Amino acid sequence: MHNPTELQKIIENAIPKIAYPPQPANLYEPIKYIMSLGGKRIRPVMVLMATELFTDEVIKALDVALAIETFHNFTLVHDDIMDNAPLRRGKKTVHEKWGVNNAILSGDVMMVESNKHLSKVDVNVLKPVLDTFNQTAQGVCEGQQLDMEFETRDDVSIEEYIEMIRLKTAVLLGGAMKLGAIVGGADEKNAELLYQFGENLGVAFQLQDDILDVYGDPEKFGKQVGGDIISNKKTFLHLTAKQLIKTEETDILLGNHENTEQKVAVVTDLYNNYGIKELSNTEMKKYLAKAYQALDDLTVEESRKTNLRELTKQIMERES
Amino acid sequence: MHNPTELQKIIENAIPKIAYPPQPANLYEPIKYIMSLGGKRIRPVMVLMATELFTDEVIKALDVALAIETFHNFTLVHDDIMDNAPLRRGKKTVHEKWGVNNAILSGDVMMVESNKHLSKVDVNVLKPVLDTFNQTAQGVCEGQQLDMEFETRDDVSIEEYIEMIRLKTAVLLGGAMKLGAIVGGADEKNAELLYQFGENLGVAFQLQDDILDVYGDPEKFGKQVGGDIISNKKTFLHLTAKQLIKTEETDILLGNHENTEQKVAVVTDLYNNYGIKELSNTEMKKYLAKAYQALDDLTVEESRKTNLRELTKQIMERES
Repeated sequence: MHNPTELQKIIENAIPKIAYPPQPANLYEPIKYIMSLGGKRIRPVMVLMATELFTDEVIKALDVALAIETFHNFTLVHDDIMDNAPLRRGKKTVHEKWGVNNAILSGDVMMVESNKHLSKVDVNVLKPVLDTFNQTAQGVCEGQQLDMEFETRDDVSIEEYIEMIRLKTAVLLGGAMKLGAIVGGADEKNAELLYQFGENLGVAFQLQDDILDVYGDPEKFGKQVGGDIISNKKTFLHLTAKQLIKTEETDILLGNHENTEQKVAVVTDLYNNYGIKELSNTEMKKYLAKAYQALDDLTVEESRKTNLRELTKQIMERES
Repeated sequence: MHNPTELQKIIENAIPKIAYPPQPANLYEPIKYIMSLGGKRIRPVMVLMATELFTDEVIKALDVALAIETFHNFTLVHDDIMDNAPLRRGKKTVHEKWGVNNAILSGDVMMVESNKHLSKVDVNVLKPVLDTFNQTAQGVCEGQQLDMEFETRDDVSIEEYIEMIRLKTAVLLGGAMKLGAIVGGADEKNAELLYQFGENLGVAFQLQDDILDVYGDPEKFGKQVGGDIISNKKTFLHLTAKQLIKTEETDILLGNHENTEQKVAVVTDLYNNYGIKELSNTEMKKYLAKAYQALDDLTVEESRKTNLRELTKQIMERES
């Protein structure tokens, strides 16, 4: 078995070796660019970890791991266009560097590249691999659609928000786990438990993200603390506060403020008065507990689960 | 065996029955919209025709036909964004109706829908079906990239143009034929011949399009005759004329004109002086002959080929 760092290394080594056609250069350079920007490679590592629960031949899952990482990066390219984002991981976004049309098209071809990686799996598992991947990809698109729609809606409920982050973020973690399980030879029950593990971890992960955005250590967070408050993002914290506050406090949450620093300060105060951080933590832990339950229920030797427990700890204790 | 009209009917009946999730409505409504705008359904009909060369169970290929039609419509949605096109088949384009971000995302999910259709084929042919589809999809994206790049380049050669239309238009017809052949149970040689038939027919089809754009009957053409001349599109006619004309005639082809009508008139005159229509027809017939040769070489009873010969005739004798 490989530890998480070794698995990440396998992915990092494999990515520069992916052979894209040399021409048209402007179609394939953006793919190499976005794929090389790094990140923690959590999703492909999860694929490999799921496979290693069932077999020592982790390399059997490499193509699926690359499919998941390519698909994830494709969503980043298209999401950045939709969000009009100038930067991604501190570097120019693809559409900033190559233009919007080029970014649309390079994204499209990344979807094809994902499918090419996928089609290399053992033909015995090809059909369930495709079904899982397509369902996952569809969910991610639906999540992005809801996320966009929520920006202009004033009546988003907490349930709707959880459903949105489930689709946009969590199903991809669930899908990564299930795909790794299928390639590793898991039976249906274990594959489904690993899907549940990944999906619940994904919701917990995103709730943690929402909390860090307000309560992260500015020295360690990497982004501007309070970014979600400044942009009035309808996060779990925002929606929970909106439900609890007195009518006369609505202006603090939704109104205009002198400047962004002051806005972050008074909204954070409001959150503190209503114990929003604790409520969010409770919600987060609910999903984390479901993830751990799925892991417990998995009919695999406990020693094989160490990596997943370690990864979960790393993800949930992160400060950025 | 079904005649071309019957096959078209099978497609037209199947499209409204595709079950998309009800929510998010704004993600799936654009798909139903673009898929319902019609067109000749040439690509899915070609899939079915290829299948019927080898088996009477044409219905086995319906999912692949729908995959090809969905993929084709996906490319229309994204190409229309890139081309900033307001209309498609006389109706508003998806991005005009739902906005660019929504159109990007609905296009993305159409790619997933194509793959979902594909994954329903018999598992015995799943792998070659995927490989053929992915190679086709990749080629189409490369063709669109080249088409965009040619707009701002002044040194496009005739060979490059042919390669661009091969990728952008012809590989999808080749892919449709090959996919239908695989599903029908064709051996590799026949599948490859049908790919060649489709691809060469596709190049001939596009060259015919270029000719019709200048020499079509205004009563029957459906679009403005001379549109390519007005937009300085680097078609086969334009590039051939550019090679042949005297230096002092360059201004007629590339310079400014009083108005678009006058421009169409004098450029058409220039084309006539150099026999551009005949040269284009010769080139077109070269590819058409290759297509017919592939059809002749096919080791299938001649009576089964009637439909393909009929479709080819219809396509090449069309006036719009």
